[in-house]
Amino acid sequence: MAYQSFHPPVRTLMGPGPSDVNPRILEAMSRPTIGHLDPAFVGMMEEMKDLLRYAFQTDNALTMPVSAPGSAGMETCFVNLVEPGDKVVVCQNGVFGGRMKENVERCGGTAVMVEDAWGAAVDADKVDDVLKANPDARLLAFVHAETSTGAISDAKALAALAHRHDCLVIADTVTSLGGSPLKVSEWGLDAVYSGTQKCLSCTPGLSPVTFSDRAVEAVKKRKSKVQSWFMDLNLVLGYWGGEGKRAYHHTAPINALYGLHEALVILHEEGIEHAWQRHQDNHLALRAGLEAMGLSFVVKAASRLPQLNAVSIPAGVDDAAVRARLLQEYNLEIGAGLGPMAGKIWRIGLMGFASNRTNVLLCLGALDAVLGDMGASIERGVAVGAAMQAYTQASA
Amino acid sequence: MAYQSFHPPVRTLMGPGPSDVNPRILEAMSRPTIGHLDPAFVGMMEEMKDLLRYAFQTDNALTMPVSAPGSAGMETCFVNLVEPGDKVVVCQNGVFGGRMKENVERCGGTAVMVEDAWGAAVDADKVDDVLKANPDARLLAFVHAETSTGAISDAKALAALAHRHDCLVIADTVTSLGGSPLKVSEWGLDAVYSGTQKCLSCTPGLSPVTFSDRAVEAVKKRKSKVQSWFMDLNLVLGYWGGEGKRAYHHTAPINALYGLHEALVILHEEGIEHAWQRHQDNHLALRAGLEAMGLSFVVKAASRLPQLNAVSIPAGVDDAAVRARLLQEYNLEIGAGLGPMAGKIWRIGLMGFASNRTNVLLCLGALDAVLGDMGASIERGVAVGAAMQAYTQASA
Repeated sequence: MAYQSFHPPVRTLMGPGPSDVNPRILEAMSRPTIGHLDPAFVGMMEEMKDLLRYAFQTDNALTMPVSAPGSAGMETCFVNLVEPGDKVVVCQNGVFGGRMKENVERCGGTAVMVEDAWGAAVDADKVDDVLKANPDARLLAFVHAETSTGAISDAKALAALAHRHDCLVIADTVTSLGGSPLKVSEWGLDAVYSGTQKCLSCTPGLSPVTFSDRAVEAVKKRKSKVQSWFMDLNLVLGYWGGEGKRAYHHTAPINALYGLHEALVILHEEGIEHAWQRHQDNHLALRAGLEAMGLSFVVKAASRLPQLNAVSIPAGVDDAAVRARLLQEYNLEIGAGLGPMAGKIWRIGLMGFASNRTNVLLCLGALDAVLGDMGASIERGVAVGAAMQAYTQASA
Repeated sequence: MAYQSFHPPVRTLMGPGPSDVNPRILEAMSRPTIGHLDPAFVGMMEEMKDLLRYAFQTDNALTMPVSAPGSAGMETCFVNLVEPGDKVVVCQNGVFGGRMKENVERCGGTAVMVEDAWGAAVDADKVDDVLKANPDARLLAFVHAETSTGAISDAKALAALAHRHDCLVIADTVTSLGGSPLKVSEWGLDAVYSGTQKCLSCTPGLSPVTFSDRAVEAVKKRKSKVQSWFMDLNLVLGYWGGEGKRAYHHTAPINALYGLHEALVILHEEGIEHAWQRHQDNHLALRAGLEAMGLSFVVKAASRLPQLNAVSIPAGVDDAAVRARLLQEYNLEIGAGLGPMAGKIWRIGLMGFASNRTNVLLCLGALDAVLGDMGASIERGVAVGAAMQAYTQASA
């Protein structure tokens, strides 16, 4: 059998990530590979740490990308900070809180869950009650921006609560980094992980993390070894840490790091506040269009993520058929629901480079055409106009 | 501060990996990103599994790339197969056997070490003795091609021994895959991991693995949960396994996978036996040149890896200064020694795309010039001629 090179179709990625990648990033990734201990590469690593500090709005010394996807970034936080017997308060209001629980338990810890409805923000009062009832808890873990539902929680308030109860804070910022206000140091988030394929518009495969000095202290004071060799920060820092000699730990994913560096340069050029505002503006336009069409949001307005719009699938409409037609006829990918939301919602991403007017108009136009053709009871022909009006209002 | 795009220097990579990346692979990585559940992507994944089976010479159903570097591939094998209390016989004849021991212990197992000198092959007789003395051992782990020393061990004989003692076999093939004969199914290797940045000439960041049905059975029969959520094959297979519906586990590193697919297509086009032969031919030419110059190999001829040539640094020569000059004056990277070999050896890689005549001649010429200039006692002006003679003999 003869095998051929793989030439992917050109899609517009408006799901929960990966999002459309800026062509500058794709080009950067195709530059010549050099060694992971090459002085030129080491210089780039130092610059990348600075750029990540800017993206996370932190001055944490330990700020670097884990050489694996966001779920490995999550695991890096948990395996380094949770020791057998530790009690961790975990907030769950979607898929990723459940994954945090799995991580705690696989580290030999006990997870005390604070449950909120899928689509709701984490309720700080409930968290306070649970922290009061569990004075021996060492950590509070929550998801800042729940990718499975499109809800944002008040990370600043939750972190303040945790510190009042002498807990360190682990925060999932996979979908918020670069898309929604996130101020790691000002808010006091201690161990934070993210992903590259959401609002940084980079390809998937890396997980930026940042640890406060308090968190680093806790890692250094562990009684037991970190159970993962690959994710043990004491070892990883021999390569990524400090200014001095770099010891080989694993071979860094050179070209993927070229891509992330370029993504961070782009974010820095735009300015992070401008990026946040752009996400908000495009969200409001998409929202105006979707609501004009008669579609409704899953999350209430105050907790809505601009970069991930979860809408209810209209009654009688075939979820998979709509997504398949959008993909086939418009090369447009939107996301399905996860877990209990499967078949009930769509997740429409406006992340990073994909958060732009062209995508808003394409998505509204394509949904209008496909849903209309399939006989869904929507208001036809009004969505794009409503979105344009929202843009006009925003710039007025 | 203004940050600029990073433009790496163009190097020739003749260290222990990453090796020179074929431009076809760099170009493939820059193709448009699509979703990890896109039907077009899923089709590519199936083809990649077939291509990996060809590279590993196996028909193992569970054959896929782990979404992280080789050290995560190693950890994937150990965390899935080692349960707390398990006894594992680990062969150490270089850096990576020591890393295996760390993995066993972090999984709660006990490692019984079989030590051989750095630079020697694993001694099968010693392994046999240790297996006899430890009838309760469940696993034998060894490194097929030791990247830290350039020695190859007899994987077939070691696997046969292990099975005679009812042990499963974990084999590190990071440096052998695509460069030296490796026949996973014929030899009975049960859990095998590799890397992309050696003889596959791809960028670093992924770790191909393959598990025999016996090994999969063992993973399924575990009494305890796999301690890593990210590496738990029971979960990963929901995405990579089977022909049916794919469940989201983590977001696959899409563009890195485009690159690996292209690397495997290239290997298939060349034919794996031809690739093995090419590595051997270029090794013999490099060896003729190095020996003519008066440099000597660390590993005895019978155990030498063609793709990784460890040579002793001549007395009185400054290791770091030579490597720095090769890099600055010739854009040529060769590898330093690791651990106890640091400062004593150089590791000259001829891996994958980098295993070619141009690189052999460049390396010999540059070493001749730099070592000569630094006053090392070498035979000057003969290395390239000796290499060319070896090529002529090989093609005769």
